[in-house]
Amino acid sequence: MVQMLRPWKTILTLDFGNKLAVYRQIAEGIIAEIRKGRLKPGTALPGTRVLAEDIGVNRKTVVLAYDALIAEGWLETADKKGTFVSAELPKLKTTQTNAGSNFQFNNHSNIETLQARTPSSLITFNDGLPDVRLAPMDELAKAYKRIFQQKTRWRMMGYGHEQGDERLRVALADMLSHKRGMTANFANICITRGSQMALYLTVNTLIKTGDYVAMECPGYLPAWQTFKNAGAQMITVNVDEKGLVVDELEQICKVKRLKAVYVTPHHQFPTAVSMKVERRLKLIELSNRYGFAIIEDDYDHEYHFETKSLLPLASEVQAVNVIYISSLSKLVAPAVRIGYVTGPAEFISSLSQLRSIIDRQGDVIMEQAIAELMENGAINRHAKRAYNVYKERREVMDQNLRRYLGDRITYRKPEGGLAFWIKFNHELSTEMLSSQLLKKGVSVMSTERFSFDGKSLNALRLGYASLTAAELEEGIRTIASVI
Amino acid sequence: MVQMLRPWKTILTLDFGNKLAVYRQIAEGIIAEIRKGRLKPGTALPGTRVLAEDIGVNRKTVVLAYDALIAEGWLETADKKGTFVSAELPKLKTTQTNAGSNFQFNNHSNIETLQARTPSSLITFNDGLPDVRLAPMDELAKAYKRIFQQKTRWRMMGYGHEQGDERLRVALADMLSHKRGMTANFANICITRGSQMALYLTVNTLIKTGDYVAMECPGYLPAWQTFKNAGAQMITVNVDEKGLVVDELEQICKVKRLKAVYVTPHHQFPTAVSMKVERRLKLIELSNRYGFAIIEDDYDHEYHFETKSLLPLASEVQAVNVIYISSLSKLVAPAVRIGYVTGPAEFISSLSQLRSIIDRQGDVIMEQAIAELMENGAINRHAKRAYNVYKERREVMDQNLRRYLGDRITYRKPEGGLAFWIKFNHELSTEMLSSQLLKKGVSVMSTERFSFDGKSLNALRLGYASLTAAELEEGIRTIASVI
Repeated sequence: MVQMLRPWKTILTLDFGNKLAVYRQIAEGIIAEIRKGRLKPGTALPGTRVLAEDIGVNRKTVVLAYDALIAEGWLETADKKGTFVSAELPKLKTTQTNAGSNFQFNNHSNIETLQARTPSSLITFNDGLPDVRLAPMDELAKAYKRIFQQKTRWRMMGYGHEQGDERLRVALADMLSHKRGMTANFANICITRGSQMALYLTVNTLIKTGDYVAMECPGYLPAWQTFKNAGAQMITVNVDEKGLVVDELEQICKVKRLKAVYVTPHHQFPTAVSMKVERRLKLIELSNRYGFAIIEDDYDHEYHFETKSLLPLASEVQAVNVIYISSLSKLVAPAVRIGYVTGPAEFISSLSQLRSIIDRQGDVIMEQAIAELMENGAINRHAKRAYNVYKERREVMDQNLRRYLGDRITYRKPEGGLAFWIKFNHELSTEMLSSQLLKKGVSVMSTERFSFDGKSLNALRLGYASLTAAELEEGIRTIASVI
Repeated sequence: MVQMLRPWKTILTLDFGNKLAVYRQIAEGIIAEIRKGRLKPGTALPGTRVLAEDIGVNRKTVVLAYDALIAEGWLETADKKGTFVSAELPKLKTTQTNAGSNFQFNNHSNIETLQARTPSSLITFNDGLPDVRLAPMDELAKAYKRIFQQKTRWRMMGYGHEQGDERLRVALADMLSHKRGMTANFANICITRGSQMALYLTVNTLIKTGDYVAMECPGYLPAWQTFKNAGAQMITVNVDEKGLVVDELEQICKVKRLKAVYVTPHHQFPTAVSMKVERRLKLIELSNRYGFAIIEDDYDHEYHFETKSLLPLASEVQAVNVIYISSLSKLVAPAVRIGYVTGPAEFISSLSQLRSIIDRQGDVIMEQAIAELMENGAINRHAKRAYNVYKERREVMDQNLRRYLGDRITYRKPEGGLAFWIKFNHELSTEMLSSQLLKKGVSVMSTERFSFDGKSLNALRLGYASLTAAELEEGIRTIASVI
């Protein structure tokens, strides 16, 4: 177990509804870890009893998986000593198409997915996701049904526009002008597969190898990885209780030609801080003076509780260099991969051309279904419902943090967003903490990765929105019991 | 008109079902062309009567559009002389967020989309697409309905696997082994957003800037552009009646270290030639000897008429370096953006990690709906239906080509695929031909772009599958009338 970076529960995601036998799911999960090099030859595996408990299956199932892997040569047993990853791996057995291939390719193993798919049996403090149990499934099902009943339904089955379905772009443009004070034109919106694709397209339209890019630290790892992948040189800027420390940024501008700054001003990731207005105006002023792009990631705009949602940087008339990224995934559900990006017309037009070689176009069927929900008000009704549920859970979260962890942590109740950022008053490794907690059925994300250099932040980002009051209390109590 | 590279009918795609007024759609279309720099200041626009005819709307509608654009400052009139793109463009009017932005970004305007979205009023010889009018819409609607009725439906609304829904991967692995003689393992399949994303991921996992890549010439432009975008140095290899000229490739291998070869062996794009077995074995042998990857794009596997579908290169035991790309878009409909890629385990695992920063995951709802259709046999029933329709249209196509163009063209009836490749016996520019034909209500793709250096191939690729017998005859007759 010691060698494992991540706990077994997050490695072996079991789906009991799956066609594939559970023991085989375990086996494939272990094979995948070995292939990725995370499980090295000679590494000891946990005893079948231990692993069975960890992942919540019958011990016999684990025995079956181990036996299969031993038969296939992935694992070997040293009698009494236990089960180990084989010293000589069965390259030829991994799969027919893998046998002795001798071409070279790029290793992307540095790219790591943020959200682990944890079994629903756990109490999971995710990084700030909505509660999928609240997803408006009936409305969505109805919308899909109506889309398929359209007389002209066959028309949508051909190729569509690389910027996305016009009907949805018009609906988004209306929403942005009515609710976010922006003057977006539907022709300047590119609908993407979630905000991650909006980010990928933006970065790969902006960046040339060697360009300097500044971003918040602590910050959002997938953004960091997307910039690195595009060849950017990253510079970190600290975040305090007012958001990005813009004076630091100004010092950087004086010595380096910045291409872009990536910010999450509404609810900073991971600290949940809302950027104050004087910082916002200064940031825009710097962008105009030094000619760098501001990439504004407004990932959960709807959920602001203390005041009305703050208007985006993009709504400021002086903000001429802002590329605005947002998404419906946090509003409806993560599986609804609909994000969008808007910005200067020429930029969006160039970005859309890149998009045409990545996946050509979006999912017109889903885009039309979502447009339907925006037009008939179902999205707004859902947003109101969800807002009230999360507002209440936020209070419960606050109460339990004070009650169980009060003297051992420091935190500010965030003005908005779906997560709390709590700092521990004593040093600890959240990597270790997360493994300890898993044994007790609670999943938290280690935050070392948010400092980019792996150094400890001595803090946790606790997404609360997808947990009920009871789950929140049990979760916090469990955290209190191990620290 | 002279300055326009593409005909108005393909530039201004009008959707009469659209919320946006038709005159506004025309106006936005023209603005987009101006923004893209395709319409330069001072360029003369066609008279309202001419344009109205070209795009098939009432002249008043065009007048409305021109008036709006003149009011907004995009166009100006020189009395009597006509309407022109303004010498001074209203930068500030393009959109608020565009006003005076001063950051730099990459220009992707070299990337061009292959399929123009032509109005359904035209007889369109596309590049070999299925007939969307045959798409199994009712089955698809039912499948979505069932997916939303699942008791565990909320579970799919969270984050899924970056390689795609396991249920669909298992169904695809079964299909590949039963129908294509491959031994793909579901764990080695990455489901993508159509084969274009499979290609993008493959290229960006394989290529480092400066790598040499060989591909068929004439060939598939989007593949060319994807490789170029990744920094590859492209080398073309000729195609004859037996497919890729492998001896040419061998000469290249002797002098250059090839990273990969991109091929469409089943039905070569655009010539529709099927690669003969001796060429296939030689290609695989070269790949093993010189250690380059073979990217096999099997984009329309189902439609082979002369013999049974040829098994992919990937089914050969010796083919250890093959990365196999295929798709359901040609089988179901282009809007069903489900492609997949399989290959050596470590390669697919690295590719999937790249995917996680592009769009994180696929559309689980659509993936499960398609899995449903594969499991319950609906896809196979549809494939049989479509196969018979296309087989018949292929005969009609052949008869009409002989009847109307017999002495003026040379072609071989292709063994499979959804397009014919016809060579004209006299020199002509297909660019010009395509504009002439549009005036007569027929759309064909110019093929200069398939030679990559823009030189004329004196040939057309005529996709026949989405046209009825009557449409095919009228289309061919019209072509005969202008050449």
